[in-house]
Amino acid sequence: MANFDLMRRLHTTDNPARIVLLVMDGLGGLPMQPGGKTELETARTPNLDALCVRGSCGLSYPVAPGVTPGSGPAHLALFGYDPVRFDIGRGVLEAVGIEFPMTPRDLAARGNFCSLDAAGNVTDRRAGRIDTDTCVRLCRELTARVRVPGVEVFVEPVKEHRFVVVLRGDGLEEGLTETDPLVTGKPPLAIVPESPAAVATATLMNHFVREAGQVLADHHPANGVLLRGFAKHPTLPTMSELYGLNCGAVAVYPMYRGLARLVGMSKVTFEGETPADEFRAVAANWDAHDFFFIHVKKTDSYGEDGNFDAKVGVIESVDQALPILLEKKPEVIVVTGDHSTPATMKTHSWHGVPTVIASPWARFDGTTTFGESACARGGLGHFPAVHLMPLALAHARRLNKYGA
Amino acid sequence: MANFDLMRRLHTTDNPARIVLLVMDGLGGLPMQPGGKTELETARTPNLDALCVRGSCGLSYPVAPGVTPGSGPAHLALFGYDPVRFDIGRGVLEAVGIEFPMTPRDLAARGNFCSLDAAGNVTDRRAGRIDTDTCVRLCRELTARVRVPGVEVFVEPVKEHRFVVVLRGDGLEEGLTETDPLVTGKPPLAIVPESPAAVATATLMNHFVREAGQVLADHHPANGVLLRGFAKHPTLPTMSELYGLNCGAVAVYPMYRGLARLVGMSKVTFEGETPADEFRAVAANWDAHDFFFIHVKKTDSYGEDGNFDAKVGVIESVDQALPILLEKKPEVIVVTGDHSTPATMKTHSWHGVPTVIASPWARFDGTTTFGESACARGGLGHFPAVHLMPLALAHARRLNKYGA
Repeated sequence: MANFDLMRRLHTTDNPARIVLLVMDGLGGLPMQPGGKTELETARTPNLDALCVRGSCGLSYPVAPGVTPGSGPAHLALFGYDPVRFDIGRGVLEAVGIEFPMTPRDLAARGNFCSLDAAGNVTDRRAGRIDTDTCVRLCRELTARVRVPGVEVFVEPVKEHRFVVVLRGDGLEEGLTETDPLVTGKPPLAIVPESPAAVATATLMNHFVREAGQVLADHHPANGVLLRGFAKHPTLPTMSELYGLNCGAVAVYPMYRGLARLVGMSKVTFEGETPADEFRAVAANWDAHDFFFIHVKKTDSYGEDGNFDAKVGVIESVDQALPILLEKKPEVIVVTGDHSTPATMKTHSWHGVPTVIASPWARFDGTTTFGESACARGGLGHFPAVHLMPLALAHARRLNKYGA
Repeated sequence: MANFDLMRRLHTTDNPARIVLLVMDGLGGLPMQPGGKTELETARTPNLDALCVRGSCGLSYPVAPGVTPGSGPAHLALFGYDPVRFDIGRGVLEAVGIEFPMTPRDLAARGNFCSLDAAGNVTDRRAGRIDTDTCVRLCRELTARVRVPGVEVFVEPVKEHRFVVVLRGDGLEEGLTETDPLVTGKPPLAIVPESPAAVATATLMNHFVREAGQVLADHHPANGVLLRGFAKHPTLPTMSELYGLNCGAVAVYPMYRGLARLVGMSKVTFEGETPADEFRAVAANWDAHDFFFIHVKKTDSYGEDGNFDAKVGVIESVDQALPILLEKKPEVIVVTGDHSTPATMKTHSWHGVPTVIASPWARFDGTTTFGESACARGGLGHFPAVHLMPLALAHARRLNKYGA
């Protein structure tokens, strides 16, 4: 784990050196045939290779060897937060994914609209997958009409039958059981507190479910709600506090802007959605931040589709656009992924993630191409992803010496 | 961290195998030009290269990736002590640096003689940098005349205006604010306790400052004292207790003999100051110890001067003298640094430190030259420096099997 106390104590803001963290989601891969090349090794990447020549390379592990991470923990690790210690609940991730501005007083849950029969038994756990417009309208009605004593209530649409409910107030607690019976023909379960501390919160949430049912009574097939993943906003120190950085996040997908927001980054707004658009956004906001997190999504999307060639293409488009970033001459540029998504597996995986740190103070390690095999032998070795931020700060000379 | 409980439980003294730990201070480096060779890679080192051929190599990290250590924490890590857990305060390091024999009942502070005007305001924070002879005389006078109720007082000269003050007694506590106002024209600050536990100690230290002022009244420009870095002697288990070793320290500079003393090593006295002199001291005391720590300082000094060629020269002089050690046939010889000090940076850095463990039981890893790039691909991998002592003990076959 990045030692927060060390980082708080050692970081300096005397040095204005800029750091760029370029994350290609699901970057790591596998060959389609034994002995073949991975997606990254197949891609033509002259600019990324040049970074390796003047940088240090390695393989990073998001959570622990053998552990396949979701996007939430994988990004927390890249930002230097131990993803096991800071376990972000599903309700919060869902809220983060729609950029709902959560506060530390908030408790969030994932919601489904569902269909109930006259006896109150669930007949469809997804309310016939109502369209998103209906979802938006019903959420607006719930927010307007449901009252829970002593707390504010927000009901925010996600997509189709999915929504997020957030209660905001003092003393709300996690540790509530879920209401989804997981089968049809049974009524939704009551929310039960898992500890004495959560008794009051369970009462409030059960109150919400009851009131929501009354508001929705005439809206079959969406005449009930199922809630799960109750979670409080995690108390995370900000990257500004830990590292002395003024961080800007450049991401096309709301989930990643939301994750960046959790650790105190500001959102950089821009037009377009290609890597070149994102890099131009960094260049246009160069003076506003000294740390930029750039998130490229499509490497992961094509990996999950099993589309090896399209993933190669996204990597090549990042490489081709890279000069837009390099022209700004960041003192440190880190290129990595949050995890691996090999096209041959069509899913996230646990494999180490190729990583390069380029800076005038990087020790040349003989790596001349950016790829899994080359990085496995690189000068950074095989390291937990939480070490990346301390390494980036060091290469920017933004950490003071520890001890005399 | 070296697992103290494991080491205590597994070490055996049945095997008299000797271990030599040769530390070239600030050994790790960088090329002066991208793609060039480091200091160590530039040096002609046939004897060190031969150790690599029959040894295992790797890169060690003193504190954590990205963290640049001072000498104190870097050496503690080499000796197997977590340098974050055992955080040695500045006052103690200053006392250690003059080999003052601190005890666990001692509280130390760094002192400056300063000049005060008639109103008690500081006019010179360094008392015109009085010469060391004057410093010695004034410290003697303070030790003789200052009385603090219930504790012993030691005032020991360091150099010019710098001294160490040590209070010895029961119940002394850390957590005191400093007296240096950091500017002239203001009076020294009173010492304030940072916790209730330190109230009594603050009173005693303020008493010392007051009495010292009276003793020094007629000694302008050195008519006052400024104190900072109040710190207690850390409670460290000895290397003898942890590892079952009888340790001797060979070092030219008092700071490193002092650090060795903190972990229970004995000082090996000798004439001269070259690496050859140090190695002859080991040979002459071969039967007195089964572990030798040898400290070579000048690699770091020339690194801090930015003198690449002179650092190369020191490494070559170590290599040339190495046969003096090798003739004694130590079962294990470890060659490493406490941290990197690249000449191009003129300061300590966070970069991994080249390390070789040569022993009949080392696994050959294909390394044939001692250097950063070669070690980055070595069989020991990239490892925290606190792992080095367990590895050295294992290669000396001084650790029993864990479990059946």
